[in-house]
Amino acid sequence: MTDRTTHDTARTTATYRVETAEDVTKVAELMAGEQSSGTFVDVPGETDALRERHAARVESITEQETVAEPSLPGASSPSEGADSPYTRADVEISYPIENTGTSLPNLLTTVAGNLYELWPLSGIRLVDIALPEAFAAANPGPQFSVEGTRDLVGVHDRPLIGTIVKPNVGLTPAETADVVEAVVEAGVDFVKDDELIADPPYSPVHERVVAVMEVIDRHEAATGSRVMYACNITGTVDEMLERHDAVKDAGGNCVMVSLHSVGLAAVQTLRAEADLPIHGHRNGWGALSRCPQLGFNYEVWQKFWRLAGIDHLHVSGLRNKFTESDESVIRSAKAVQRPIAATDDVAMPVFSSGQWADQAPDTYEALGNCDLLYLAGGGILGHPDGPGAGVAHLKQGWEAAVRGIPLEEYAEDHEELGTALAFYGKR
Amino acid sequence: MTDRTTHDTARTTATYRVETAEDVTKVAELMAGEQSSGTFVDVPGETDALRERHAARVESITEQETVAEPSLPGASSPSEGADSPYTRADVEISYPIENTGTSLPNLLTTVAGNLYELWPLSGIRLVDIALPEAFAAANPGPQFSVEGTRDLVGVHDRPLIGTIVKPNVGLTPAETADVVEAVVEAGVDFVKDDELIADPPYSPVHERVVAVMEVIDRHEAATGSRVMYACNITGTVDEMLERHDAVKDAGGNCVMVSLHSVGLAAVQTLRAEADLPIHGHRNGWGALSRCPQLGFNYEVWQKFWRLAGIDHLHVSGLRNKFTESDESVIRSAKAVQRPIAATDDVAMPVFSSGQWADQAPDTYEALGNCDLLYLAGGGILGHPDGPGAGVAHLKQGWEAAVRGIPLEEYAEDHEELGTALAFYGKR
Repeated sequence: MTDRTTHDTARTTATYRVETAEDVTKVAELMAGEQSSGTFVDVPGETDALRERHAARVESITEQETVAEPSLPGASSPSEGADSPYTRADVEISYPIENTGTSLPNLLTTVAGNLYELWPLSGIRLVDIALPEAFAAANPGPQFSVEGTRDLVGVHDRPLIGTIVKPNVGLTPAETADVVEAVVEAGVDFVKDDELIADPPYSPVHERVVAVMEVIDRHEAATGSRVMYACNITGTVDEMLERHDAVKDAGGNCVMVSLHSVGLAAVQTLRAEADLPIHGHRNGWGALSRCPQLGFNYEVWQKFWRLAGIDHLHVSGLRNKFTESDESVIRSAKAVQRPIAATDDVAMPVFSSGQWADQAPDTYEALGNCDLLYLAGGGILGHPDGPGAGVAHLKQGWEAAVRGIPLEEYAEDHEELGTALAFYGKR
Repeated sequence: MTDRTTHDTARTTATYRVETAEDVTKVAELMAGEQSSGTFVDVPGETDALRERHAARVESITEQETVAEPSLPGASSPSEGADSPYTRADVEISYPIENTGTSLPNLLTTVAGNLYELWPLSGIRLVDIALPEAFAAANPGPQFSVEGTRDLVGVHDRPLIGTIVKPNVGLTPAETADVVEAVVEAGVDFVKDDELIADPPYSPVHERVVAVMEVIDRHEAATGSRVMYACNITGTVDEMLERHDAVKDAGGNCVMVSLHSVGLAAVQTLRAEADLPIHGHRNGWGALSRCPQLGFNYEVWQKFWRLAGIDHLHVSGLRNKFTESDESVIRSAKAVQRPIAATDDVAMPVFSSGQWADQAPDTYEALGNCDLLYLAGGGILGHPDGPGAGVAHLKQGWEAAVRGIPLEEYAEDHEELGTALAFYGKR
């Protein structure tokens, strides 16, 4: 990533990793032109004054490696005899805020719109973005962030330990409540719906949330601990607002949304009306990110959703069961925890997928804090001594991580952790 | 594409092109499990009855070529000694409608969510989708479609010929109106904002649309022809609804939205409230489509937006200045024109990028109809005899195409076409 030595209050700077058979400087100028005042033909009204006010500007070009084959099809081919066929480069382009104001949807069109299809680009990935402070001032950001979320569950000194209701589809509201009861009694701080269940005919939100919150209320009355339930309200805007209110009316304390399925503008409306934390599920993210020379880095993507107001953002987890590398997971989590304009505009990263105590020390070491949600399925339900021991081993694993004690050592006088190390460790 | 011999009214069938180093049958089962009742661990509540009702089902697997290297990083590697390292296959998976109801956002999460990151997949693209009729019954579809759009401009026997206001950013409302006046006088049927201008401080929608519609009203009074102006209202939901009303109050006849920037749920709200055709801009589409082994085919993508209610959908154009092949452009346009459940649920494909008369015969031959918008920039403004001749040559080109007369022959007694062939043809 390129360092920036100046901070421009009036321009957004986007960094792209490009790949091209053409001259990189010309390609960068083409990108800047296409995404601001340019077109394929000369236009009479494009005066110098207009360009001065509105043109995007190439700020820097840092050439990287060359490659023999294009990463993406359809782009122009190298001219005959060229000895470095495709050049990769980091290109910084700045855009005047005047072109979009502080509108997030229109910023997205500007920095990540048609340029994905520009003819010379056999690779084009948006890897970083630096925004004028006006964006943070004009957009709400997370309403609850870390402290607000922690206050709702009364847990301040460790990650929120959570799980996902399974089976992920097919349970009635009453069956869902039974599953929630089991994990709540096991000691989780947080439980969420799977992304595959929102408001199907067999489990409407307004029935499910009532059934689940009865369990959570009862548990609070007995123990003093209030578990957070992220109820999946994904749907149309009207449906989401109505479901949010149903969750709130039932005493619920979190709503979940599949971000790509509803989109940025719907999330903005939900945030404007919401009184509860918004848990952002990233399903579909792989389509935008898995090709290394296309799409988005998470660092960029998460800024849009945080500015729009998401409180919790999924980042997968270390040694996950998906395709993402540990290094990428940590970069994502750090991005989510890095302030944009203020310390309370961070979101909580949500770690999940194959998580148990094993990943706690590495996760803590990489981040240096516990301001995260740590979700486990098999790591809780699969524990040989039952879900209660599953949750206990996760808490013990995080205690060890925070205190810098190796898991094996801490397990000597923490039985659930010891059992987990023996059981999960040899799988 | 795989043929389907049965039509299931209760299941959505999605076809994926996958690539994997694992056994394809097992991978297909994993996908079906992950996107319905499955998880990584055995779960007590996952009964046979639940699976029967809610499980996704692998309908067919058609193995394709093998490749030596994975298309995407992060997936599992072949076991040692395997002689066909990565197999590509078309996998059909069906999902019960009971899991999502007819909710488009939740359908999207189901067919195109977490599976993009599944560990065995070094390639995963959603290439086709067949929906139960209930989706078309429950979702509004385009309000205007072809005939409604044609009625608004009074053009029924040829494509709507249009252009985009350029420079695309920086013009004040009055300057925009001047540009519109020039192209309206040149004879276009349709003019639209660029996707890069929505409601910036220097050109608020409510001022711009008044200025532009004055020009269009004046032109109608003089000629009887009413030009359609697609005003870009992209923004938050509230902003879009307010801007839609401003457009309508000014006598406007179309609103434009950047689909990826606002998202599906916001478009659903706009459609529910709109009294005008919605022109859907696809900027950002490249990020979801350019890697052949990742993302979406346009055929799938456009169904979601049409069901949500978009009337016009961009498809690029033949011999365009972007990276898309002609074959792909035609497949997209045909998909947009293919009824889902009824003939009036089609949208109008919007052809643009480097278009002039040259592409008219091939476009017409491929589609067999003129139910499209044909947008030209240089093809109008760059004509040696001015924009009027530019528009005339486009109309002549389409007349020739529809009548099956070669352009060169038709140009013998159509001067503007002849001049265009001589001028653009040798560039």
